[in-house]
Amino acid sequence: MDKLERARACADRMYASDKASQALGIEIEIPEPGSAIATMRVREDMVNGFNICHGGLVFTLADTAFAFACNAYDDLTVASSGTIEFLRPVYLDDVLRAVALEEHRGSRSGLYAAEVVNQHDEFVALFRGRSVSRGESVLDA
Amino acid sequence: MDKLERARACADRMYASDKASQALGIEIEIPEPGSAIATMRVREDMVNGFNICHGGLVFTLADTAFAFACNAYDDLTVASSGTIEFLRPVYLDDVLRAVALEEHRGSRSGLYAAEVVNQHDEFVALFRGRSVSRGESVLDA
Amino acid sequence: MDKLERARACADRMYASDKASQALGIEIEIPEPGSAIATMRVREDMVNGFNICHGGLVFTLADTAFAFACNAYDDLTVASSGTIEFLRPVYLDDVLRAVALEEHRGSRSGLYAAEVVNQHDEFVALFRGRSVSRGESVLDA
Amino acid sequence: MDKLERARACADRMYASDKASQALGIEIEIPEPGSAIATMRVREDMVNGFNICHGGLVFTLADTAFAFACNAYDDLTVASSGTIEFLRPVYLDDVLRAVALEEHRGSRSGLYAAEVVNQHDEFVALFRGRSVSRGESVLDA
Repeated sequence: MDKLERARACADRMYASDKASQALGIEIEIPEPGSAIATMRVREDMVNGFNICHGGLVFTLADTAFAFACNAYDDLTVASSGTIEFLRPVYLDDVLRAVALEEHRGSRSGLYAAEVVNQHDEFVALFRGRSVSRGESVLDA
Repeated sequence: MDKLERARACADRMYASDKASQALGIEIEIPEPGSAIATMRVREDMVNGFNICHGGLVFTLADTAFAFACNAYDDLTVASSGTIEFLRPVYLDDVLRAVALEEHRGSRSGLYAAEVVNQHDEFVALFRGRSVSRGESVLDA
Repeated sequence: MDKLERARACADRMYASDKASQALGIEIEIPEPGSAIATMRVREDMVNGFNICHGGLVFTLADTAFAFACNAYDDLTVASSGTIEFLRPVYLDDVLRAVALEEHRGSRSGLYAAEVVNQHDEFVALFRGRSVSRGESVLDA
Repeated sequence: MDKLERARACADRMYASDKASQALGIEIEIPEPGSAIATMRVREDMVNGFNICHGGLVFTLADTAFAFACNAYDDLTVASSGTIEFLRPVYLDDVLRAVALEEHRGSRSGLYAAEVVNQHDEFVALFRGRSVSRGESVLDA
């Protein structure tokens, strides 16, 4: 199994039991180890009181891309922190795309950036997350 | 209408159309203007691939408390950024409680902290959000 | 040596070789283990192009309070991240006071908040830092 | 005056009165509007108690690059927040280089990222700052 195959096997293993991402209709693509693309259509049950997508769900999409990016190495990692900057409102039926990239990977912790764009390729949010390894296998979890 | 009544009227107005918070089963309480308490039970569709609550949904709970806290003044505000530090894993059926407090309120922007605890009163996350006013009424929105 | 004595011994040991804090005229007080107070007068060489204190030096003061707070246990820790929210401008000759408090202390990492006030007790900045242990002694360093 | 000339004129104007950056030996270069490069050699008076550069001064360097990047448009802006992730220790005599790039520029606020590398081109820190306009001229300030 090469590195990309392993990254995709980890993603498949995670996604199969990730009821939260499934329930939100999030789909995952792994272009290369350390990166992940998560897409989500903004549904009626994702809209808040100002008729825009709940910012927490935009964060959730970015955080999902981050989680799949940092678990590419069969070393189970979890988020220790996340930060999001909201740039533009997101509306009902928008299709969001979060692209997570690895900025740094140390022995136990890593940093990942995710950009979230809408269907017009406009930036709607910028995310950064810090991961920490739990020293377990993803594939054997 | 005194200040607390106005804060609660704003919250009621927001909650009535906040399908996202409703869909997540989040309930809101307004103890005083500038503060809000949001509670959520972790359901099966909130759990991720490692059998713990998706961190994005913990963020969403804290972000919801923040949103209700900062909209207490009938001055419509939205989040410009949010940061979360994850302290402990959250499990299926845990009942989370996010308490948002106002740290600073300027002419156009504000800072709010939210602590998230579980049913054992253990801290599971610390959140901070920055709000920005849109110069519109909440009650007339 | 009780816990407060140990915290103060660690602070003394750190301060003695902390040329950066000394050069900035920062003074340290340890009210209890896990907390620290750092004070600094804004000098002419700390002012930026808009005639206000360089934000980096306000961060540096808060970060210093944080560093002394998290090294109270004779377990050498360093900052893994820091975030600051600037609330008010700081002027020449202002006397700033950063009070750092422990929000969470896990086995290897901790979270600390620091509030920075000026001589009028107005908040000028809010800081949060994450520490990580290096598994060494402070007193024997 | 074209855009690059204006950006450089703003930087010159700021630097001339920026005693803080001068005192730290920080030098500035403006490769294009919205970007800035700040360099600094780690002096004896920048080292902390663990014999590594005070993290606050690494932040200060990144924050300086950010400040010069976001003031390129003759629209005076100040930082409303900053976040730094520390990746590697920085030692005495290291030469640090912070490169700030514009991530987003809205009508009143902007986001800027800065990467800090040492003389071996190793990442030592990642920074992100949010700017807010004060609606004044830089050149006439």
